[in-house]
Amino acid sequence: MSETGRCELCSTTAGELLWSSPACRIVLVNEADYPGFCRVIWTAHVREMSDLSTAQQQALMAVVFAVEAVLRQLYDPLKINLASFGNMVPHLHWHIIPRWADDPHFPEPIWGRRQRDSTGLRPKVSAAQLAAAMQQALAALPDLPQ
Amino acid sequence: MSETGRCELCSTTAGELLWSSPACRIVLVNEADYPGFCRVIWTAHVREMSDLSTAQQQALMAVVFAVEAVLRQLYDPLKINLASFGNMVPHLHWHIIPRWADDPHFPEPIWGRRQRDSTGLRPKVSAAQLAAAMQQALAALPDLPQ
Repeated sequence: MSETGRCELCSTTAGELLWSSPACRIVLVNEADYPGFCRVIWTAHVREMSDLSTAQQQALMAVVFAVEAVLRQLYDPLKINLASFGNMVPHLHWHIIPRWADDPHFPEPIWGRRQRDSTGLRPKVSAAQLAAAMQQALAALPDLPQ
Repeated sequence: MSETGRCELCSTTAGELLWSSPACRIVLVNEADYPGFCRVIWTAHVREMSDLSTAQQQALMAVVFAVEAVLRQLYDPLKINLASFGNMVPHLHWHIIPRWADDPHFPEPIWGRRQRDSTGLRPKVSAAQLAAAMQQALAALPDLPQ
């Protein structure tokens, strides 16, 4: 099977779809410990940011930063964490994660050592509310190249 | 003391300086397990990417992706990892980390569980070589806004 045929980001939505364009999509991860945790997934099976053109880099990051802005508006977290690794799934995708001082891993990254089990109260935001806010924020952006 | 007065990214270089502009600087982290690990640090004490203007976001990410391209060229790693957390130091900075299948944490992020002690042979690249390559890559970029 080809590399793209085996890639879960090529063959599945990999989350709850909030918004999509030909170039990329935004999905909600739905992880109980991390409400609002979203991923932005580039559509094409590309490995690194530096494999994209400058216009594509800017378009993808504009979506990532729009997601960050929406998450700040709806969740008012202490901090936003951004990361693109791709060590296990080498298909370009970004993690956008709202963080709070009493979340399970703070101040470590969520991939670090778990610090505590309890988490504080978080704003209740539905996937539909998130999708509407993303749609509104992204309508202002120019068309994304593929 | 003010927040910026206590901030280590405001008050120290926080690494071996490879390149700088009024807007940001590139430092080499010099972590034995992760040769080539660099950080791009925004000069102003800003918390989140979405606190920057679009032009500032594009300028900062252009530097981050230029660092990525230089590290790929000089180290030929299996993967590049990019991250901006700021949970401990809420002053905008990016981690750019070359990764290899036999590095201490692969395929986890470097903040995850250590998998092994031994590391393979890596290209020997001096800070001077890195600085020269960064200078060359960044000379092509337009002036960065502050």
